[in-house]
Formats: sequence, C-alpha cells, structure tokens
Amino acid sequence: MKAIVVSIGDELVLGQTVDTNSSWLSRELASVGIAVVEHITVADDSAAIEAAISGAAMRCDLLLINGGLGPTKDDLTREALTRALNAPLELNADWLRRLESFFAQRGRPMPQTNRVQAMIPRGARLLDNTAGTAPGIDADFTGGGTSRSCRIFAMPGVPSEMKLMFQKSVLPHLAQMGAGTDAGTDAGAVILSGTLHTFGVGESTIGEQLGDLMDRRRNPSVGTTVSSGVVSVRINARFAHRDAARAELEQTAGLCRDALGDLIYGSDEQTLASVVADLLTADKVRTVATAESCTGGLLAKMLTDIPGSSGYFQKGWITYSNQAKTELLDVAPQLLAQDGAVSESVVRAMAQTARQKSAADFALAISGIAGPDGGTPAKPVGTVCIALAHAQSVLARTFHFPGDRQTIRDRSAKMALTLLRFHLLGKPAPF
Amino acid sequence: MKAIVVSIGDELVLGQTVDTNSSWLSRELASVGIAVVEHITVADDSAAIEAAISGAAMRCDLLLINGGLGPTKDDLTREALTRALNAPLELNADWLRRLESFFAQRGRPMPQTNRVQAMIPRGARLLDNTAGTAPGIDADFTGGGTSRSCRIFAMPGVPSEMKLMFQKSVLPHLAQMGAGTDAGTDAGAVILSGTLHTFGVGESTIGEQLGDLMDRRRNPSVGTTVSSGVVSVRINARFAHRDAARAELEQTAGLCRDALGDLIYGSDEQTLASVVADLLTADKVRTVATAESCTGGLLAKMLTDIPGSSGYFQKGWITYSNQAKTELLDVAPQLLAQDGAVSESVVRAMAQTARQKSAADFALAISGIAGPDGGTPAKPVGTVCIALAHAQSVLARTFHFPGDRQTIRDRSAKMALTLLRFHLLGKPAPF
Repeated sequence: MKAIVVSIGDELVLGQTVDTNSSWLSRELASVGIAVVEHITVADDSAAIEAAISGAAMRCDLLLINGGLGPTKDDLTREALTRALNAPLELNADWLRRLESFFAQRGRPMPQTNRVQAMIPRGARLLDNTAGTAPGIDADFTGGGTSRSCRIFAMPGVPSEMKLMFQKSVLPHLAQMGAGTDAGTDAGAVILSGTLHTFGVGESTIGEQLGDLMDRRRNPSVGTTVSSGVVSVRINARFAHRDAARAELEQTAGLCRDALGDLIYGSDEQTLASVVADLLTADKVRTVATAESCTGGLLAKMLTDIPGSSGYFQKGWITYSNQAKTELLDVAPQLLAQDGAVSESVVRAMAQTARQKSAADFALAISGIAGPDGGTPAKPVGTVCIALAHAQSVLARTFHFPGDRQTIRDRSAKMALTLLRFHLLGKPAPF
Repeated sequence: MKAIVVSIGDELVLGQTVDTNSSWLSRELASVGIAVVEHITVADDSAAIEAAISGAAMRCDLLLINGGLGPTKDDLTREALTRALNAPLELNADWLRRLESFFAQRGRPMPQTNRVQAMIPRGARLLDNTAGTAPGIDADFTGGGTSRSCRIFAMPGVPSEMKLMFQKSVLPHLAQMGAGTDAGTDAGAVILSGTLHTFGVGESTIGEQLGDLMDRRRNPSVGTTVSSGVVSVRINARFAHRDAARAELEQTAGLCRDALGDLIYGSDEQTLASVVADLLTADKVRTVATAESCTGGLLAKMLTDIPGSSGYFQKGWITYSNQAKTELLDVAPQLLAQDGAVSESVVRAMAQTARQKSAADFALAISGIAGPDGGTPAKPVGTVCIALAHAQSVLARTFHFPGDRQTIRDRSAKMALTLLRFHLLGKPAPF
C-alpha cells in the first residue's frame, strides 16, 4: 500500500512555517506498515489543491491531506476536494447540529462562516474532531475511467487537532484496510527502522565499506545520511510480520557493525557526548576537563548537554586570546610566538595544564582557525589542533575541516570527543 | 516567476528527518520576489525523482532540487535529472581535478565512488561547493515539444552545504533571470519580508502590544512566530512594485518598533549575540568575560559564534562543581554552604572574580538548575541566577524558565546576553 501526504497552506510554501505534520504522519504510517512515497505541499490556491489531489490520488492507495478545512476564506480544501471527486457539496445536518452545540456550549452564537464546515462532498463521510470545529473528510476517489481507487482522508492543519483526528478516526480505518496486521500480504507489511552513527570519515568512505549492503534492491535497505558531520547508516526493514522485521533489522545492523567496526559510535538517539559520558562512567567514574580556544565553550557545552554530567565534568577554561592561554593555562609566551596559537605544541601545553589544574583524569584542548578571517597559506581557515592529556602522555593531532565558522567549530568539538572516545575504548583513532 | 522546490530522501518521506530545506529556500526566494507554489518530497527512487522533476518542470519557471547528489548508491538525483533532461551524462574533467585535490589536501586518496560526482548531463553547468565534495548542477529544461522552459538548480541535501551553494552560486543567477526586478505585473508581484526579534516576554504579550497591526486582512501582514524562546514579528509586504513593497514594509516595521520599543533586539539575520557584539564594539571596544555553571560553556559559545569575537571576548571559566567555583573563582565555601550554588550571592561573587581575573569591562555569571534532576521545592528545576558585573556594581536576578534541560540552558544564556544588552543601552531590563 502506497501513501502520499498532501499539506496545504501559504505559510508552508512561503517557508514561514516548517511542515512537521508530514513527517509525523509518515512515521505513524510506517509503524503500521504503510510506506509514504511522497509529500506534496501546495499554497491556499483552489486550483493547485485540486490538481495536487487529483494527481496524487492516481499514483497511491491512500492520500492523507492536512490543512485548509477551517471556516475562513483562505480554507479551500473542501471545495477543491469536491471538484477532484466530481461530486456535489451537501450539507450534513448532523454535523451542523454538532457545530451549533459546540458554540452554544461556549455561550457564543455560531458565526455564519462556520456553516461551511458542515458541508461535505456527496458520498463522503465526516471524521470527528474532538479538539476543534473542523471535521475531517473520508472519501473514495475512483480514477476517471480506470480501475484505480484511492482512499482519501482530509484533516485539519493544526498539528494537535490533526494528530488527535488521525489517531482516533483515521487509524482504525487503516487497520480495517489491512495495515499493520500479520496477514502477511504486501498490503499489510511492517516497516521497522534503526540508525547507526559514525563520525570522522566521509559518506563515500562509509558507503564503500558498506559495499553491497547498500544495494537498492536489498531488504532491509541500507542508506546513508549526513547531518552536522555525522554520517548515519539508516536501516529500514519491510516485512509481513513484526517479528521477522525485527530479526532482519538486527541481522542487517550486525552486518553494518561488522563492516564499519569502531567507526560506529552509537545508534538511534545516542550522541557522541552521550556515548563518551557512558564510557567515562562505565566502571568507576573518570573525569574530563576542557581548554578551548576556537570552539569558545562548545566542547564543554556538548559534554554538559547530558543530564548528570556533573559526575564527570567539573572545570573548563576558555582561553580565546594568547594572553588568556598564558595567564590561565601557563602556556609559555615563547611557545606561542614560535609555533603560533594554532599548533600541536600549544594544545599539548593547554591540555597538560588543564589536566593538572583540574585534577581530572583527562583534559581536551582545542585551538584552531574557525574563520572567516585569520587564515594564512601555512594555516588556512579550518586548521585545528586538538590534544588529549591523560595519565600516561599527551596525544595531539592537526585537522583540516572544510566549511564555515559554525561547521569548523562543530567538527572540532566532535573530533575532540572522538579522540577521547577511542582512547577510552583503548584503541588508536583511525584519523 | 513561479518556483517549485523538490526535496529528495528516504529519511524525509519516511518521516525520520523533518525537511527544513524547503522552507528555508522558500523564504530566500520570497525575499527576491519569487513565489514558491509547491514543495514536493520524494524517496530515493530513481523513477519517482525523474517523474517529480519532469512533472514539476512543466508547471514552473524555476525548479530547486535538494538532496541525492552524494557519492553513494542511494544518491540518484544526478541520474534521474539526466533522464528528465534527455541528455547523456558526461565527465567534467575540471571538477574531477577539484575532487582529487580536495582529497589530496586531506592526505587521503579519493574513493572511486566519488568520481560520479564529477559527472553532469551534457549542456548543464556545475555549481561550486565550497563546503563539501558534491557540486550542484545548473540545467535548462525544455518541455517536450512545447515552448515551456524551466531553469533547474540541483543542490546537495546537507543544509549547510545547500545554503552556502544557494547563496554563492544560485542567487546571482536568479538576479540575472530578473528576480526582484520592478516588472510590476501580477505574475511578478514582489513579496518582501522582514522580521523583528524579541526575547524575554511571551508571544501573547507581543501580540497584545501589536494590537490591530496583526489584523489578517492587513497588507503588509504582521504575524508572530516563536523559535527557541525568540518571539519574532514577521512582516510580509505584497505589492506590484518593489519600491512600494519596500516603503510599505519599512513603514509597518516602524509601527511595530513603536509598539514594542526596546523589546526588539534586532532584525532579520541578527542574533542576540551579534547585537551584543555590535554594542560592545560600537564606539571603543569593550570586553566581556564569562563564568558559567549550568550553561556549561553555552554563553561563551554564543558570544564566540560571531566572527571577530576575539575583539571583545578573551576569557571564560566553566565552574560546574562547587569546588570549581571556589578554586577557580574564589567563591567562599561558606557562601556556597549557606546560600547554595544557585543563589544571587554566588553568581555575584562569580561575576566579580571573573571580571577581576580577566580585566574585562563586564563579566556575566550563570548558575542554575537545568534538570532533569537537582530540583528542590524551594529551587525547582528551571531556577537560574544570573549576574552582570561592571565597573560600578553587580546586578543579579533570579529567573524561572520552563522547559527541558536544553531549553533552560538556552534561555539562561540568552537572558544573560539580554541583561548585558539592556546595560549597554543604558536602560533597566524590563524583567
């Protein structure tokens, strides 16, 4: 069963509101085994809405519409849907009474404009709205002269009203249509998803290491996405039965883990900081201090994003200027003059002093050129030195991160966490 | 000129990632007078991408595609676009060299899979990517046998790469195509938008103060949106001519400023930190130091988000534990025992010492309970004390922020910036 979600509203196509209804509906449908293949968003324009509905209904079995059911002049979904269905609009007397009593309960007369909300195309059914005045519409589309048929549910655009209506009035119909059952037909398959996260190597390298696992015809399917430098491996398992989907998902996740090894730092909701926090507190608690220049507090912010971070984090320094590095972290002025603030020798010194002054088990130090200014031919924007001090010695590395200021700062902090992660795993970092 | 945005990715149609690229592109296009009439999101499916491109190109003048340009097997936009254009795919030798040098600079061999990123449809042009390896594609679609033509720009799906490419390589072409000109026809009506930002009071208060300016029938229209605690006032002016739109936009913005006064901290791309940075460096440069407990570096991170922040920011301390507050910032253990770490007396002491030790003109200190644990009946989660030390004295305030850990930390840092902003304006903070 293929589904399409159509969202309606000027504020969406003009970019003033980010559409979150479509992704919410997609997740709900996936959980009952229905694959959404397309999202379409159109303006409050009657002809455009009609064209979107007619076109989409020809290429899917289930069409979920949200938005444009309100009482005002810019709510045009009812009218457009009626034309797409080629049926006359009729007054539903039951719903008119419901509307009148809704307003009566609030001690207000019903505005005339609300009367239109009791009108639906002939042959369609109303969907209850327990949170507002706009009922939904449940209709059957039969394609012009073909055997094509598509079930259409039109819901309000207000997220809270849409979600309630979907759960109370749409989901039960989908179950009747065979979704999410263990019937084992194609129509009622279950989709389970899982995600593995990596940081430090590019999407193409991850893709090469995954090899045939990424074959487009594979089920479970394996795909990669990139977000803020994190390359994630997304696995979608579509099977007739939930148990089979879960077992296949786990088996494919295992194959991905085999292919990528320690490049995978976590799964699903885990972040680099949460994984480092787990490693720091796994047996006995160990602590980490920070000494930051170009990241300006971002590394410490990431470490303290995690509830309970006071267990492993107590002290951090932000030494943005050379003078600050000398005054707060005893970096010798000669060293700064000789090697420059962005050098492995300087971050080594920063990390060592931070570790001593904090009495932490580990200290991470970062100094780099986040740009847009400050680059030189020898040290262009994106050059970042990171050091990790621990009881035995100090590790220092130089990186070259592409991107803008925000990107360079983000990657620098994540790489510092990654160096600590590999150290805590007792393995050399592969960078 | 009508535009359509097509976004590509399984993660989008399955609802695992919310599409924010489409709304960002819509806002950018609106600001140069191009109305986006539709967003389409399709899966990583070659036939579906081709159908979406071919269909959309027949009903718009400008098609912006994002996603599916990476080097892996699930990146299918290049291939689908090539088929939609009915042109052969050719290797671009220049870009192949660019790719090879991109990897060479990072001391790594180029994976074979990346070679495909140097392939484009014959007749198309490459768009530079300064942040990654996927170049964009600039192509002309001419409809089968009709006089229809549509300019197509395909960009990467990674938001930071897409935004940079749009601004650097797509926007200049749009200007050449006549966007934002004074053509003045209905088809080319100009939409100019402006946004004013406030922080510290709720959306309903802002709405009340704006009053009739928010009437739905007004043009320019005035609406409010909330994002991360910032209540923004969005003004959209739709007029036939650019000059009229600009004049009306400015006039309405002036009325909003009259209604909200100093609650407005900035407009459009300005952030609280950028506005504070501007105030700190307006006449002679003044400097600020930070002393953070619950925000764990977030305040310093915000201050150093701004290019050139080394002018006004040099030193910060993160004193997450009581011991750290005593050892690094000389907070008396008796004070901590008596008033608690989250108290106005403690943040006063933190701010004063940070100011002395840094020799900065100002110091901001934050201590609070970000949760989820650590709250008490007297000091529930969300209780945050903030101090501002300056040459004359120390100001301290206690706030109660609702929300989760991340929200409380974010609001705390923004409120600290806000206190400094009002001090720099020479006005008392209205909180």
